[in-house]
Formats: sequence, structure tokens, C-alpha cells
Amino acid sequence: MATVNSNYLKLKAGYLFPEIARRVNTFAAENPDAKIIRLGIGDVTEPLPLACRQAMMAAIEDMGDRSSFKGYGPEQGYAWLREKIAIHDFQARGCDISADEIFISDGSKCDTGNILDIFGDDNSIAVTDPVYPVYVDTNVMAGHTGDANERGEYAGLVYLPITAENNFTAQIPTEKVDLIYLCFPNNPTGATATREHLTEWVNYALANGSIIFFDAAYEAYITDPSLPRSIYEIDGARDCAIEFRSFSKNAGFTGTRCAFTVFPRTLTAKANDGSDVNLWQLWNRRQSTKFNGVSYIVQRGAEAVYSEDGQAQIKELVRFYLENARIIREQLTLAGLQVYGGVNAPYVWVQTPNGLSSWDFFDKLLHTCNVVGTPGSGFGAAGEGYFRLSAFNSRENVEEAMKRITATFAG
Amino acid sequence: MATVNSNYLKLKAGYLFPEIARRVNTFAAENPDAKIIRLGIGDVTEPLPLACRQAMMAAIEDMGDRSSFKGYGPEQGYAWLREKIAIHDFQARGCDISADEIFISDGSKCDTGNILDIFGDDNSIAVTDPVYPVYVDTNVMAGHTGDANERGEYAGLVYLPITAENNFTAQIPTEKVDLIYLCFPNNPTGATATREHLTEWVNYALANGSIIFFDAAYEAYITDPSLPRSIYEIDGARDCAIEFRSFSKNAGFTGTRCAFTVFPRTLTAKANDGSDVNLWQLWNRRQSTKFNGVSYIVQRGAEAVYSEDGQAQIKELVRFYLENARIIREQLTLAGLQVYGGVNAPYVWVQTPNGLSSWDFFDKLLHTCNVVGTPGSGFGAAGEGYFRLSAFNSRENVEEAMKRITATFAG
Repeated sequence: MATVNSNYLKLKAGYLFPEIARRVNTFAAENPDAKIIRLGIGDVTEPLPLACRQAMMAAIEDMGDRSSFKGYGPEQGYAWLREKIAIHDFQARGCDISADEIFISDGSKCDTGNILDIFGDDNSIAVTDPVYPVYVDTNVMAGHTGDANERGEYAGLVYLPITAENNFTAQIPTEKVDLIYLCFPNNPTGATATREHLTEWVNYALANGSIIFFDAAYEAYITDPSLPRSIYEIDGARDCAIEFRSFSKNAGFTGTRCAFTVFPRTLTAKANDGSDVNLWQLWNRRQSTKFNGVSYIVQRGAEAVYSEDGQAQIKELVRFYLENARIIREQLTLAGLQVYGGVNAPYVWVQTPNGLSSWDFFDKLLHTCNVVGTPGSGFGAAGEGYFRLSAFNSRENVEEAMKRITATFAG
Repeated sequence: MATVNSNYLKLKAGYLFPEIARRVNTFAAENPDAKIIRLGIGDVTEPLPLACRQAMMAAIEDMGDRSSFKGYGPEQGYAWLREKIAIHDFQARGCDISADEIFISDGSKCDTGNILDIFGDDNSIAVTDPVYPVYVDTNVMAGHTGDANERGEYAGLVYLPITAENNFTAQIPTEKVDLIYLCFPNNPTGATATREHLTEWVNYALANGSIIFFDAAYEAYITDPSLPRSIYEIDGARDCAIEFRSFSKNAGFTGTRCAFTVFPRTLTAKANDGSDVNLWQLWNRRQSTKFNGVSYIVQRGAEAVYSEDGQAQIKELVRFYLENARIIREQLTLAGLQVYGGVNAPYVWVQTPNGLSSWDFFDKLLHTCNVVGTPGSGFGAAGEGYFRLSAFNSRENVEEAMKRITATFAG
């Protein structure tokens, strides 16, 4: 009799975003005239940059002629894309990362989930609280946790609270953990990490033989030149960190699908017999066996991000969303709400007023302002009493949403 | 100290195709003038159908306007694509499969590897021998096997030999196995399954509570109307089978990337506590958590496969490669070689002459004819003494390769 992976049964009822969709759909069905504005899911709204579209059009032309037709590409991605990434995103910032350390993928969500494939089941694992739910859920599914308590915390995970009290940067753990998920600029709080903070983490990881999973999906939103954009700007990170990057939030690829993971060749971890095993080789084997590369057409689109036009166009996109974030911060502050983030990040993290729970504030915003956000408690127990608003929307929608919110809360 | 998944260390040195690439590259470097013809990897060579290219061009236009721009799509794929697949590929052939049982993905290699995520580690697993290596390697990586012996067989797997003696269709096992990988038309042997043979498998699975993983990536190559193209043409398969399909080999999508998996809602397997768990729900949870859907542009290209023009164009493509297969069969037979497959499949399975080992025949073909094929032993111990030639190439290359082979072997 075939059996299932019973770890899946430990997962709480719904992934956060489907639950939001359910409540919004119910409200919309009951209020068909309501003009709902969605600042919930962190999904881009503006057109794909022209440079990327032109490159993909040309790639489709390539596919129409047998002399330029492309079949299976390298599982790791095409060299021309890996090289541009290594040069522009890393070497130009002084990071010692080479093209063959870049693995092209179809998304950071996939990569941050799949990464666990190559690690042992006996690692102790730390996540911040609140946190991007995929980090936690994929560990539950892999059997790295016990059951969840009523706060939604899974036994066996080390939770590092990030709240206003610690400026949304987790304290370095006093215990020993083997795998650590960090995300800066942070989803969901919009917090950033200073060079000093990341240096503390790298030193901790080097001292303990830990590996840091560094999610830098939002690095393009950093405008403060003193803040590191890659963990490889920190000495020693090549020996303890894997970095995840994406074209979703800088170039609007959420529906086009391209991302990458950086695997320094110098990374090792221990086998059962105590020997050191090269992690690049394991990931390369994983990707060669369980993945067939990203669409040639899409990789050509991603390559165009690094052209002169592409660079100008993505800077414009990021500037646009950052201006939305500025407006959200400003208006909510005027409405008397306490806000965090939204400066070097596309997310504004709001303290709920009058001690409302995150979901109560969600329902209130939905019902009185017809604005959708994301309850902080959906990202973890320590997110209770907070709320995430995303800057990904049109200027018109952001301004209208702020008008409705200030009308409700400033009064 | 972080640890690795030590199961990876049980994997044999190289995945088959990288080893072939290594030998070919070495030969090419030493013989720069050799005109090498590759009939090794099953990769298509002809242009992408015009209907698919036109649809992708239009999709890129959609991405250029905020009113038609697409961000994150459904993780399961767009409804318009799932519906066309359900109608054309299944309902039109009398299979009771609905749109919401179709999960769009970026490749069958990914799906056949990822499928193990939702199953327990205690299942007994059967594969044919020879077999597509991904089935075996992903089980090794997941810790479902012991070490390999010198024949490359992993302890703990049930191998079902398929050879000329049993007409390349595995005998139904006498022991009880929980998960069974079947592939028809078969990679690598080119064999097909009759309705009677699949009925035996379905009855076995229903009697034993087993789940069949049915890989139908090559179904488009079936021209004999008496042969089933989907396992759901067999009564009872909805209660015991998951089917994998791909646009790679019918529409030339190996470099464009789109595939799908069929998960009937009626499938269940057992949890630790003996209760029945719905597999559709587990796979839906897996895909929602670890995957972000296929590129909107690519899904529009796949949708065009079902247009009137698209259907005509893919039929023409398949006809073209089948004619290559016919030529390969005919010429090798004239050269005195014993061949199998290649009639309702794009692969011809050749018995090596004079008792040569598969790799010796590989080297001989490479060195004397400058033709690349795939050693049968690379697909499993029972593939020793066989050799796979793929019909995926231009007519000119196939004819030239056959001329060289007949000149060498017919003499």
C-alpha cells in the first residue's frame, strides 16, 4: 500500500495568500460594486521593460529557424547570462563571484524550497519571526520539524523574533544553529541590514560551521549606498553563504519567471562520515537531475536587463515603486499610524492601531476602505499586531488607497 | 556544523549524458575536422511551430501594457491552458479527466523527480531495467535506496528487466511494490504497451494499493490506433495512476519548457496513522509552496498547440521525426543489425553486433562513423549489449549517419 509523506499533514490549513484570496473573494461577491485595491501580495503591476520584451521577441525569431533553434540548454543556465550576472551584480561591487557560481532558475521560491534537498535532515534550522512562509513550510514538508503549537510555531525550529524593539534585525543566537535563513531587504518588514549586522552573522556562521541562506530578492530597492546589496560584500561569506536573487522585483518578472542562486565553489558541509563535501557539486548534481534549465526565450529577456537600455528601464521601475512606498509611509504617518520599512524596500510594515489583531485590521481595511493588505501574523507569531502593505501597484491605486485609509483613521 | 544529504554520495560518478558529452568533446578536440552527427540525446532540432511562436509574440505584447500585463499566475497553470489539455488530450479520447486535474509545469524531468516529495520514505519502488535514469537517481537522492553494486543496481529498488526476450514489456511483479514507474512509448527501447498490458498493470496496482507513475512524454509518436496513448484509457486508472506529459517532443519545447502532470482527484495513499490522504491535495500544496507557475509567455505558446494551425504543425513535426526513425530502422537492418522500437516511438534500440559492450559500440561508432548514440548500459544493467539511436535530427544528418554506418557494418 503506497504511503504519503505524512509531514505534509503537519502544515497549517492554508498558505497565507490563498486565505487572503478567500476572504477577498467572499467580500467581492457580497459587494460587487466595491472597487477593491490590492496592496497584499508582493506582485508587480507595471509593464515588462521594453529591452526585455525586444530581446524575447528576437529569441522567438531564433526558435523559428533550425540554424538558430535552441533545444535543451544547460541545466545551470546559459553562459552569456551567468557571465553578465557575475560581472554586473557581483564583480562590479567587489564581490569575488564567478559565472560558474551562478545557477539560473525559474524562481527564488523554487530555489529557497529546493535548497533543502542537498542538506541533511539532522541540521538545526533558524528562521526569523515574522518570516517568508516558504522557508518554514518547506522545512515542515521535509520532516525537519514537529507539530505546530497554537501560535503556529513548529517544534524543532529556532525562531528569532524581529520586532520594533530590536529594530527588526534578529539577535545573533546564543545557541548553535546549522542553517540560517536571512532576508534583506526584509520581506515582510522592509528592514535592511547594515554591513556590521551582516558581518556579525558571517562571523557566527564561520565560527559554527553554519550555512546562511541569504535571500536578496529585493536588493534593487536599496538606495542607501552604505548598505550591502549582497552578502558577498562581507569578508568570509564565500565560505558560509548561499545567495538567492530574482528578476521578479527589479525587472517585473513575476509572471515571466527567472531567478538565480549563487553557490560559491568554496562552500562545504559535512557528510555522515565526517568528511567535507563540496556544496556546489551537490547543487550541480541536483539541478542536472531534477531540472532542465529555464526557457531560452526567458533567459534572453533576463540578459537584456544588463543592457544599457535595460539598466535604465529597471532603475525607472524601481524608482516608481519606491515613490509608491514613500507615499504610503507619508500618508499612513499622517493618519496617525506607526510605520516601518518602505525606504530601501518595497514593503511598509504597519503597527495595527488600538491593539487590533492583524486579521481584524485586515478585515477592517477590507470592509471599510476596500484595501487589501497582508496580516503580519500570517508571517509568524511575532508578526501579530503588524500589517504589510506592498508598494507594488499603480500610482493612482496607491494614492486612492491612501486617501481612503487616511479618511478612516485620521478622523 | 551543517551536514549534507549523504544519499547524494551514493550516486554513481556521472549522469549518463554528461559522460557522453565528455567523450564526444575529447574526440572532437583531437579530431577538429570530424563532422560529428549527434543521435544521442533525445533533443529536437526542428523549428518551433509557427502557431506557438505567434502566440508567444502576442503574449509578449500583453506584457508591454499594464492593462494586459501578467504578474504571478496560478501555481497550477492558467485555466485556459488546463482546459484545452483536458478536452483535447483526454476527454476527446474518452478519458474522464477534468481541467483542475492538470498541473502545468516547466518539465517532465522536474515533475518525475519532484513527485517523490509527497510520498513516504517507506514505499517499495519498482523501475524497469533499462530505464530513464532520472527515476532511479531521484530515488537515490531521496534516500530510498542503499548503495549501488558493480552493475550499477541500487539495493532496495525492484528492477524489472525489459529485453528482447520479453518484447521489452516488464513482467508484472510477483512481489508487492508500492510505486511503479512505467514509460510508454518507452525511453530508451521505443517499445509500446498494448491495452491488455496496461490493464494488467492497473489491475495489479488496484489490487495492491500501488500508485503507477506513467510517463507518456512520447505519446504523440503512437500511430497505431489500437494502442492507448494515456493510461486513463484503462478502466480503474483514475484510482491508481499519475500521468506525466510534455510539450517537448510533440511541439519541440525542449528549450522552451512546458509540461504537465495529471493528478486525478480520486487518488489516495496512506498516512502514518493508516488514514487515506488525497494525493491531489498534497501535490497542490507542494506546487503552491515550492513552485510559482510557468511563464505566462510560454503557457500561451503551449495553448497554441491546441489551435487548428498548431495541431496541423505538430502533426507534421511528429511525422517528420517518425520518418527519420523509419529510415534508421531500415538502414540498420540492411546493415545487418538487429533493431527494435522506432515505429510508434522516436527511439530505435539496437542490439550491438559481435557481442560488443554498449560503451565499446559507442566508441566504435564515434571513432569510425563520427556518430553519437547512447549506450544502452547507461540506462541500466539489462541495457548492456544495446544502444539507443534517436530520430531527432535533420533528414540530411540522419541519412548521412546511416550512410556511414552501413558503409562500416554492411561490409
